[in-house]
Amino acid sequence: MTNCIFCAIVAGTAPSVRVSETEVTYAFMDIAPGNDGHLLVIPKRHSTDLLDIDHQDLTAVTLEAQRIARAVVGDLDADGVNLLNCCGADAWQTVFHFHLHVIPRYADPDRDRLRLPWQPGVPGNRQVMTDFADRLSVALG
Amino acid sequence: MTNCIFCAIVAGTAPSVRVSETEVTYAFMDIAPGNDGHLLVIPKRHSTDLLDIDHQDLTAVTLEAQRIARAVVGDLDADGVNLLNCCGADAWQTVFHFHLHVIPRYADPDRDRLRLPWQPGVPGNRQVMTDFADRLSVALG
Ligand SMILES: [Zn+2]
Ligand SMILES: [Zn+2]
Ligand SMILES: [Zn+2]
Ligand SMILES: [Zn+2]
Repeated sequence: MTNCIFCAIVAGTAPSVRVSETEVTYAFMDIAPGNDGHLLVIPKRHSTDLLDIDHQDLTAVTLEAQRIARAVVGDLDADGVNLLNCCGADAWQTVFHFHLHVIPRYADPDRDRLRLPWQPGVPGNRQVMTDFADRLSVALG
Repeated sequence: MTNCIFCAIVAGTAPSVRVSETEVTYAFMDIAPGNDGHLLVIPKRHSTDLLDIDHQDLTAVTLEAQRIARAVVGDLDADGVNLLNCCGADAWQTVFHFHLHVIPRYADPDRDRLRLPWQPGVPGNRQVMTDFADRLSVALG
């Protein structure tokens, strides 16, 4: 896709610090990392977001993210990992080529800069939960 | 697995507000939602985390999360969605049965309570990035 920075990275016309590459996927370091080792896994073929990406590319990206997560925890010195996808501008998506964030986590608070994105342990309103689930069940068919 | 609350939910011996069910997956509302509509997709078969789950279950959970995300944005009134996996206690995992958070997002700031888990736009140290990528590439083989 024209003017897509991640397509340019895949094509090699924009720079990136490469982590891994398969037939279908490309992984590279995030230029504004939340923690040391923060990287992105993307499909080589352009898709806008989670709603748009096809099953084959989504599966390949997810399995490559798992392979990387295992290496980050098993072979490097991370103590955990988060996977995050942001779908839509209202969900913090800023580059509109599907990408999965792989973010190493560290037990040492001096090395870990992430904060939980929500207030922990606040029980949900039961009626709101059941209403949402009912409407969603109907939509899912 | 004994004493796993999510295995008990799948077995029907612990309560949940159900969203969807396939042969391999189960989806239900998070009891402490970050935003209205926050739900979890899990494999019915127990796996501890992202490192442990097998390819088939991970793929099924991911594709079901995508199907749900499409309905949440397309049929309900969310404006975006986040997918989050927490792998390990140091990555905020609290229930050790693999689960993928699906969190609807809302453009209206009065309806959206999530905050970005990292400081936005802080460029990474180039040497740290290339060192990490080099070590990870070697580990990945
Ligand atoms: Zn692109
Ligand atoms: Zn992003
Ligand atoms: Zn379990
Ligand atoms: Zn959780």
